[in-house]
Amino acid sequence: MDSFNKLNKRRDFIRATGLMSVAGFSGIMLPSITIGNENSIPADDRPNVIGPRTGFSPQVGTLLSMMNWMRGPVLRTAKGLSVEQLDFIFDAESNSIGSMLLHLAATERYYQLNTFDGLPWGSWDKSIKEQWDTAMNLGDEGRKKIKGHNFDYYSNILTETRLKTIEEFKKRDDEWLMKVDEKWPWGPTNNYCKWFHVCEHESNHNGQMKWIKSRLPAAKK
Amino acid sequence: MDSFNKLNKRRDFIRATGLMSVAGFSGIMLPSITIGNENSIPADDRPNVIGPRTGFSPQVGTLLSMMNWMRGPVLRTAKGLSVEQLDFIFDAESNSIGSMLLHLAATERYYQLNTFDGLPWGSWDKSIKEQWDTAMNLGDEGRKKIKGHNFDYYSNILTETRLKTIEEFKKRDDEWLMKVDEKWPWGPTNNYCKWFHVCEHESNHNGQMKWIKSRLPAAKK
Repeated sequence: MDSFNKLNKRRDFIRATGLMSVAGFSGIMLPSITIGNENSIPADDRPNVIGPRTGFSPQVGTLLSMMNWMRGPVLRTAKGLSVEQLDFIFDAESNSIGSMLLHLAATERYYQLNTFDGLPWGSWDKSIKEQWDTAMNLGDEGRKKIKGHNFDYYSNILTETRLKTIEEFKKRDDEWLMKVDEKWPWGPTNNYCKWFHVCEHESNHNGQMKWIKSRLPAAKK
Repeated sequence: MDSFNKLNKRRDFIRATGLMSVAGFSGIMLPSITIGNENSIPADDRPNVIGPRTGFSPQVGTLLSMMNWMRGPVLRTAKGLSVEQLDFIFDAESNSIGSMLLHLAATERYYQLNTFDGLPWGSWDKSIKEQWDTAMNLGDEGRKKIKGHNFDYYSNILTETRLKTIEEFKKRDDEWLMKVDEKWPWGPTNNYCKWFHVCEHESNHNGQMKWIKSRLPAAKK
């Protein structure tokens, strides 16, 4: 497949999954489907309707609807900021807005490896750690290394990472989502809880990004 | 019912809904039930298992499992802080940790009035506004008025407010949860989305509370 077709196919895929809506497109009501049986809830793909999604298992689609919804406010916080603003570090312990965006992608990547590939936390290849550990751990190294990128850089990495999640969600059913990892450090934890955490974790950092955004030095121009 | 019985009944209710787990109690596996039909997911009331909950409609229970899970990290952030630390204001624009805790309760109260009582946003009685508007709006008035309370004060208000939500959730089904408010300012929005927002909003402020907590002046004793 040439890269133009690949891009178009990817665009169709993004549209179908509702990820477009986070970039400001209004939601389109797709045909309702009922899944499984007479008691099930029909899919409604509008962005502010949390629930099953066309083409996904009911609970997986419901989770995805939350994750896509959550991505909206996160991107809106950072959109329009300059490289200098994305790099701004409030104090010696603070992370830049840019580094927090990359941290969200790193988190999603590591939960993919854990829940889709069944890898115990941190057991992934060195090459993966080299790519993501700085953003995952933030701190001094993050402050030193994550800088000089514009909004699109972060937004594209977040979207690419999310598309991988969506592709994998598409292959999985609610039974997988409910599967409990009895050895997880928090205690027995199902995949739904892990991915709910990935979702609420975006809100956690969005709270911090908004806090910093409202304290950015006035633009120097 | 005398107040002792009322308290005991309330305790049983809290235990049954899993709200105890946020206060540090380990989860107890209640008997599995299947809801509705052969395709449905059995309830598993352990705190890190997101999904249906005993005694609630499947999707309502799933939402509640997320809300209870989310309350854990929020309370853990603030537990153990002194009144002085809960009142600490970082800068002229900042809200105290205490005021943010009360803000979460106010938000939950207003979404109750909107989604349970069907009241358009802000159309509630003056007495309710007098009780909650300061915490809802924060800012200068919040900085002036919300102070001098210990952790238990905030924790009790959060729990009382959550118990009201749980009581109402118990009466409602998934059809109610999926009901779309076509006139909501964000665009058509279902009750699931409104309550998911109440939930992720706790994480948003928890991110800010943790940011401030790590910058509290060293205890003066």
